[in-house]
Amino acid sequence: HEILELLNKRATVVQEIGKLKEMQGVKRFDPVRERKLLNIIAEHNKGPFETSTLQYIFKQIFKASLELQEDDNRKALLVSRKKKPENTIVDVKGVAIGTGEQHFVMGPCAVESYDQVKQVAQAMKAQGLKLMRGGAFKPRTSPYDFQGLGMEGLRILRQVADEENLAIISEILNPNDLEEALNYVDVVQIGARNMQNFELLKEAGKINKPILLKRGLAATIEEFMYAAEYILAQGNDQIILCERGIRTYERATRNTLDISAVPILKKETHLPVMVDVTHSTGRRDLLIPAAKAALAIGADGVMAEVHPDPAVALSDSAQQMNIPQFNEFLEEVRKHAVVHA
Amino acid sequence: HEILELLNKRATVVQEIGKLKEMQGVKRFDPVRERKLLNIIAEHNKGPFETSTLQYIFKQIFKASLELQEDDNRKALLVSRKKKPENTIVDVKGVAIGTGEQHFVMGPCAVESYDQVKQVAQAMKAQGLKLMRGGAFKPRTSPYDFQGLGMEGLRILRQVADEENLAIISEILNPNDLEEALNYVDVVQIGARNMQNFELLKEAGKINKPILLKRGLAATIEEFMYAAEYILAQGNDQIILCERGIRTYERATRNTLDISAVPILKKETHLPVMVDVTHSTGRRDLLIPAAKAALAIGADGVMAEVHPDPAVALSDSAQQMNIPQFNEFLEEVRKHAVVHA
Amino acid sequence: HEILELLNKRATVVQEIGKLKEMQGVKRFDPVRERKLLNIIAEHNKGPFETSTLQYIFKQIFKASLELQEDDNRKALLVSRKKKPENTIVDVKGVAIGTGEQHFVMGPCAVESYDQVKQVAQAMKAQGLKLMRGGAFKPRTSPYDFQGLGMEGLRILRQVADEENLAIISEILNPNDLEEALNYVDVVQIGARNMQNFELLKEAGKINKPILLKRGLAATIEEFMYAAEYILAQGNDQIILCERGIRTYERATRNTLDISAVPILKKETHLPVMVDVTHSTGRRDLLIPAAKAALAIGADGVMAEVHPDPAVALSDSAQQMNIPQFNEFLEEVRKHAVVHA
Amino acid sequence: HEILELLNKRATVVQEIGKLKEMQGVKRFDPVRERKLLNIIAEHNKGPFETSTLQYIFKQIFKASLELQEDDNRKALLVSRKKKPENTIVDVKGVAIGTGEQHFVMGPCAVESYDQVKQVAQAMKAQGLKLMRGGAFKPRTSPYDFQGLGMEGLRILRQVADEENLAIISEILNPNDLEEALNYVDVVQIGARNMQNFELLKEAGKINKPILLKRGLAATIEEFMYAAEYILAQGNDQIILCERGIRTYERATRNTLDISAVPILKKETHLPVMVDVTHSTGRRDLLIPAAKAALAIGADGVMAEVHPDPAVALSDSAQQMNIPQFNEFLEEVRKHAVVHA
Repeated sequence: HEILELLNKRATVVQEIGKLKEMQGVKRFDPVRERKLLNIIAEHNKGPFETSTLQYIFKQIFKASLELQEDDNRKALLVSRKKKPENTIVDVKGVAIGTGEQHFVMGPCAVESYDQVKQVAQAMKAQGLKLMRGGAFKPRTSPYDFQGLGMEGLRILRQVADEENLAIISEILNPNDLEEALNYVDVVQIGARNMQNFELLKEAGKINKPILLKRGLAATIEEFMYAAEYILAQGNDQIILCERGIRTYERATRNTLDISAVPILKKETHLPVMVDVTHSTGRRDLLIPAAKAALAIGADGVMAEVHPDPAVALSDSAQQMNIPQFNEFLEEVRKHAVVHA
Repeated sequence: HEILELLNKRATVVQEIGKLKEMQGVKRFDPVRERKLLNIIAEHNKGPFETSTLQYIFKQIFKASLELQEDDNRKALLVSRKKKPENTIVDVKGVAIGTGEQHFVMGPCAVESYDQVKQVAQAMKAQGLKLMRGGAFKPRTSPYDFQGLGMEGLRILRQVADEENLAIISEILNPNDLEEALNYVDVVQIGARNMQNFELLKEAGKINKPILLKRGLAATIEEFMYAAEYILAQGNDQIILCERGIRTYERATRNTLDISAVPILKKETHLPVMVDVTHSTGRRDLLIPAAKAALAIGADGVMAEVHPDPAVALSDSAQQMNIPQFNEFLEEVRKHAVVHA
Repeated sequence: HEILELLNKRATVVQEIGKLKEMQGVKRFDPVRERKLLNIIAEHNKGPFETSTLQYIFKQIFKASLELQEDDNRKALLVSRKKKPENTIVDVKGVAIGTGEQHFVMGPCAVESYDQVKQVAQAMKAQGLKLMRGGAFKPRTSPYDFQGLGMEGLRILRQVADEENLAIISEILNPNDLEEALNYVDVVQIGARNMQNFELLKEAGKINKPILLKRGLAATIEEFMYAAEYILAQGNDQIILCERGIRTYERATRNTLDISAVPILKKETHLPVMVDVTHSTGRRDLLIPAAKAALAIGADGVMAEVHPDPAVALSDSAQQMNIPQFNEFLEEVRKHAVVHA
Repeated sequence: HEILELLNKRATVVQEIGKLKEMQGVKRFDPVRERKLLNIIAEHNKGPFETSTLQYIFKQIFKASLELQEDDNRKALLVSRKKKPENTIVDVKGVAIGTGEQHFVMGPCAVESYDQVKQVAQAMKAQGLKLMRGGAFKPRTSPYDFQGLGMEGLRILRQVADEENLAIISEILNPNDLEEALNYVDVVQIGARNMQNFELLKEAGKINKPILLKRGLAATIEEFMYAAEYILAQGNDQIILCERGIRTYERATRNTLDISAVPILKKETHLPVMVDVTHSTGRRDLLIPAAKAALAIGADGVMAEVHPDPAVALSDSAQQMNIPQFNEFLEEVRKHAVVHA
């Protein structure tokens, strides 16, 4: 239809489109060729479109082509659901995460002592939970704040876990600690401040234990996916993503829980997605409602911090639950969770 | 216990604390007196605390006292649950909002024609919904964008509402339009851009129809409550608060849905709280999950936009649902809502 | 070169490009036609490009065309420097703003009394300044905070201004107050909270006195320009733009001074641009450095607040300068200002 | 004055204040003791202050005391100007940074080849500049983007620097690369994404070459200072801080240049402060005005990126200057810089 009105620009149109095909063979972006093509348009244009208009449209074609490639890249991203439509199931000592069943990851902010961890572990076991978190290496804003018990903390976690039959999730900060830590932890956590510590991500991609990757404080969802890609690109596909609140102007909460990130990540990637309700809100009184929202929107799990006596905790005392609060939390929230029989 | 070590600062301590009592009779803050007191401390201090230390502590006492008053103020805020513990029930033509039952407010972004509104209204009626939204006065970034049909739009809404037995919620921008608009609307909406248009808030406080007040694009939760207080202070307590997303760095969504605002507002105020899932996400594919989260976290209602043919809508075409999507949305989301028999 | 490889898609390519020409006759966006064209591509495509690829490219062409029109719109924006290359000179009682000369707008946050205003005015006159700011209508977060003296405040400003030969800049909140206020003020300020109060902007566009328009707390630069367009579209081109800090996560300052906004606004528009160093920083100790930066980057003026005794001011006591600080400020900053002889 | 109204609370007041003294001997925060004291108040209070009021005030006293200690901590921070009033002078191969003289750090975003680096180096030498930046290890959002030439890039930089008598600043990502890198670089840069990579900071604190530490994308100024403290605490005081824009909602610039951070950092710390105008604005057309603002506000130096042919650069092509633009930049900006004879 209306075929013959190619009075203006036809020749150049076609050339460039022909070249587009070639360009697809080319790396990513060839600015020298692009500039040459724009010059050709200027020479050949006889109107009625202005040269600048045509150049604009062709720049869009180049950009479209480039974006096509990028879209292909994203399709090609190993984290992408376009690449792998079915859910990745992360296996943590027999607990399958990513199946639709919803899980709870609980435990103290920081490991302080055997007794402290033991009390929490017993409460968890009594509730039938299996996934325990606890910080041994603590990234702290100030070098003079409590930095965690380090390897000794991991040993405590392991001992208690073995006694109570739990799995352990704990953050590692230094790539050089990874190997030793694998003796103690079942899941390596990479924290928000290290989400773009690419050297650590690469090392995490080489181990054969699951990774729990937290979203950076001001990371976009896209950057978050690329961070996971750094891990997957090294061969480790056992990754759990964790939304933990982003930094905004609002101060009623410690961070702003970006709840919409959950369905976006579930749609764009095939990885399980959890929500850390403790760090996203920073308020004990919001843990239950935030957890309900996280479960309703389809998170694969909820993380929260528990301490036998939060008031005397060495970190984050204002936001951890004590044991009775933990029991109340579970009772209230579990009703809303999908739990397979 | 250890009573007598009041070697240092006792006299001054007591003086100031005595004065604190007086200060409570005083307005808010008397910097002249404060400076005088700080001088007295300097004169009387004999250690071992440094004068600067003592002055610091006393400044804290002054501030505490001031905050006490402010806390009293907040307790005294008419919107505060401390002031009025029981829920305010907003009555919209017989629909009671704030009872625990969860509602749906649906309708087109902008009123475009009788037919358009009629189609949506019929779909709503078929689903048993009563609360219809529709924009007649549209605040637009550009003066050259479609600004809505104005009073003519309100008349269309009224006509359709009467035919289908619905209640109408529509935004008013100009205080001077309020009186005439009351002939047509059942609830006056004050939009995000006008959340701190205090002249409009004051006028809204003088009418005897309910107000739906949206949170500003970058308003804190505290500012939001004070905006409602402007209305309540004029005598109108029929206010519905509406979280509609805040402006952050994240671009995967149009705004960032601050889901935690819902339980905070429910706790701090006695007013019903709704969530606008359309404007907070700006993505049709997120409406269902966001609505589930809103209901799970305890919102009194969910707002979303519906248009018979979103692709040709004069505004917000990318985020409105068409009628089949609307039906699917309700079917999916209603299961999670609290609905009284 | 390589002309003949138009095996694939040539026909459709040309058709659509022909149609693009027609589309330019069309309003803005015709989604029905767009969908039809995408269908045509699907029918005619024989490879090797995938249909989805071609549709993607054509969507880009449509978008480019649309953006072309929008770019034309922006070119057509009355505020745009593309529309009017030369600077707009705003004349405030004989003071020409926008010429390259740099000005100072000073005065108290809020008008409290004749004496208070008089003291500041005398200090300004002694320094040879002409442009005085002072708030009579104060937009306050809480309805119970000091709301300003209203019209009485404007009368005080006028009286002092006449005695000391100054020009008066003061904020108006209610469109209904504009007419009376014009008896007293030389420049009408529209504050940050009202930057998208479109009804007020339209009224401001109808008066024949200059407008000082402040950027909204979380407004983009583009939204800021459109807000000015609302005024200009009504016929009033005497507009001064004022950057006053934006809301971010950082708390070391009250707002974050977006200093880059100045050269962007100077480049994109023909309007004078000022920087309010008081509200952007909220810290007295940053007024001098911030003012130096504003002058260096090319602002047409600097605004700052002065109060005879800031400690007892009814608003913003922490950030206003007293008279000696004002004199020091001017002495320090003026060296860096462009002042015509 | 009014000494004797210590009817209410005197005893408890004094006890607690006595205890405050003890508390200063205690670590940081003793919640058990605090709770005990609050109980004592409840037992002894006979009015007229309510117990809750008194407890509130005493909580403030405890907090004040704690903050006092924290203030002492901050005073004790090695980065603090309270701790060390005079400027730290960072010596980079004979160039003294921090003296008041203002410097330029220029060079390509990424090292691509010897020729590319050589051309920039010659242009810099012709302008009398000494401080060259260039990226060999590039932190990239995607694992598939150009990651830099690594050690080979550092060798190129060193070779050119030796030929042209320049000093080299280059980013290191992996603590394990530090030792080898010291053979080639004169200043180790720690990038924005690694500002809270505490393991890297600690290693940087152990070397004896200067560190250029960039502010994180969403780091507060306080967090930035603590990151520097991590380095200084290990013994390395040769630190240059660099403001490089923060992440906000505004999209007219790549980041938002937080210009106020410069005077705040200069006031709070004794370290030199630079401004990276390339990354903060992301726009070539803003480099000159942003650099003028940075110099005017007192930065010790300005960083910007230069590439012989930015259009074909492997990274950041839109924001680098070519050689003529570099010359124009320097000519325009240098007039505003403080340069010692």
